Amino acid sequence: MSVNEQEERLLAIIESIPPYDEDAAHRAELHSDQLTKPPGSLGKLEAIGAQLAGATGELWPDLSKRAVIVMAGDHGVCEEGISAFPQAVTPQMVLNFLNGGAAVNVLARQAGAEVVCVDIGVAAELKHENLVSRKVVWGTRNMAKEAAMTRSETVEAIMAGIAITAEQAATGTRLFATGEMGIGNTTASAAITSVLANLSPELTVGRGTGINDSVLVHKTEVVKRAIELNQPNPGDPIDVLAKVGGAEIAGLVGVIIGAAANRCPVVIDGYISTTAALVASRLAPRTVSYMLASHLSHEQGHSKLMEAIGLSPLIHLEMRLGEGTGAVLAFHLLDASLRLMQEMATFDSAGISKS
Amino acid sequence: MSVNEQEERLLAIIESIPPYDEDAAHRAELHSDQLTKPPGSLGKLEAIGAQLAGATGELWPDLSKRAVIVMAGDHGVCEEGISAFPQAVTPQMVLNFLNGGAAVNVLARQAGAEVVCVDIGVAAELKHENLVSRKVVWGTRNMAKEAAMTRSETVEAIMAGIAITAEQAATGTRLFATGEMGIGNTTASAAITSVLANLSPELTVGRGTGINDSVLVHKTEVVKRAIELNQPNPGDPIDVLAKVGGAEIAGLVGVIIGAAANRCPVVIDGYISTTAALVASRLAPRTVSYMLASHLSHEQGHSKLMEAIGLSPLIHLEMRLGEGTGAVLAFHLLDASLRLMQEMATFDSAGISKS
Repeated sequence: MSVNEQEERLLAIIESIPPYDEDAAHRAELHSDQLTKPPGSLGKLEAIGAQLAGATGELWPDLSKRAVIVMAGDHGVCEEGISAFPQAVTPQMVLNFLNGGAAVNVLARQAGAEVVCVDIGVAAELKHENLVSRKVVWGTRNMAKEAAMTRSETVEAIMAGIAITAEQAATGTRLFATGEMGIGNTTASAAITSVLANLSPELTVGRGTGINDSVLVHKTEVVKRAIELNQPNPGDPIDVLAKVGGAEIAGLVGVIIGAAANRCPVVIDGYISTTAALVASRLAPRTVSYMLASHLSHEQGHSKLMEAIGLSPLIHLEMRLGEGTGAVLAFHLLDASLRLMQEMATFDSAGISKS
Repeated sequence: MSVNEQEERLLAIIESIPPYDEDAAHRAELHSDQLTKPPGSLGKLEAIGAQLAGATGELWPDLSKRAVIVMAGDHGVCEEGISAFPQAVTPQMVLNFLNGGAAVNVLARQAGAEVVCVDIGVAAELKHENLVSRKVVWGTRNMAKEAAMTRSETVEAIMAGIAITAEQAATGTRLFATGEMGIGNTTASAAITSVLANLSPELTVGRGTGINDSVLVHKTEVVKRAIELNQPNPGDPIDVLAKVGGAEIAGLVGVIIGAAANRCPVVIDGYISTTAALVASRLAPRTVSYMLASHLSHEQGHSKLMEAIGLSPLIHLEMRLGEGTGAVLAFHLLDASLRLMQEMATFDSAGISKS
């Protein structure tokens, strides 16, 4: 398939995203006001309930089958020395996910969610019966020297994310979380965010897995150089993703678009996932009403990045791990919202005076 | 028992609170650093794990038996017209708790927690097989005209909270949450907070269940008048609690002291519960290391109140319902922390490179 045909297919899927069901959301709000509590006193738990209705078109959707899609990819920019960990950690952690030993596995078990681990761009040969192999690149190229990916590779990665989400939805999955693994990917995320949200790299580059002050200065310089060299076009999100992005970020853009196309709410994890959400919001604005924020990452710039999409975080735990950990943790709040709507007594049924 | 004998018993219990087990907390931190994640990247989930170890003295305490203690009481100050809801709602909501229809019941079921509902000061006759009847007052007196409670009533309410917690602990409960119900109790909480944290009522008086601007101005005036009239002594937390407090707030002070005395962590709910936590922290400073914050309430002043104790909230949902809803919701985060510590692979076991 030519680049143009690929992109046309992508645009058709974006076009197919159903609009938010205002009527269902409104019915959820009306029901919420009948429950035995002062109106609005459950705060965002009420807003979440309304949003889940608006996204799915059902007053009380059954979201019990849920998955976190963990996209893994490597980054050529690692050769600039911008991370606290060696690149070999990416495939090692992928195997950890597949063996159930990582933080996201533990939190997914707690949340009753499946961990779907995808090799979309790891720079190593990976084999495991539970691995979803959709390798688009063997690691990206070094964006400080050239474009990280071609446009075609980028669209292919987005389409892979869409395809995986569609397969999941076809087996009954109704709720998604975004997760990722890729040594170097806070560097790519900072570059994308700087371009798309028009923020200086001083505001978007953070400490990632834990770099010191001098590496932080260097990492900021690398991001500046990559942007200057590649001149990504802020009006063309795919161009930005290709030139200074990463395969796992593109894959997550696909997961978000795919979730929305299937009327499935998608919970956004930390800094890298939110970068993918920003790209998705520019490429397919309708996806925003399917997104739910989860936690505020400790990574610098996450708060401004969320604002750029119009999201606000629910959980403040100073986490900075990625993998989808914060998103899976937030499933509990969605469950709480749905349970409250279904199980609480109404003023009438409980015989309680209204103000 | 004379007032002095009662207070001596209370002081003896406060003295008996075991110190925080620094060694156990340190062992939890060491273990956490072996897990497959950058050190500290799970943020407060790691800190919670260490604190649970320090509080209980066990590396991985079994906190599966847990309860939210919902203290209910009425407030004489309601006759000043400071609430959006009539006082009759307090006993109506108590019956709703007992019948399982309130928000706290739903969230407690989700968290696997028992709801223990206590009539400690409701201004109505209440009978139900599951109600814990420890009525100390039939509603407080109007603090805008006289002291809300006597010192003796106040100490009795604290002792009731301690006794209930001790009974629970004796049957195996290892984790507590604070909850309350009482029309008018944000007014009493604002008065206590103003006195103990030395904050102007303009900063501590909020909209409670949803009053308008003019009632907010009036409520602030009422709090000022109550403080001026009663002259509570900021160096004597029991005096403050008696003169401008409430029976349910005193009862929660007892729950917090009782939890600590039994080495049980206690999760603090919103504005009223945090006021009780502030009183407990002044009366029994060792209780602070047993406290875990839960959510940031939408109620004005909650953030400053938390700072006064040294707590910081985990969940930001703009809730303002009380009942223990936010605290019970946060049990999930404690569970997550303990599961991560127990189930994650270590760098050695997973064969992953360290930085």
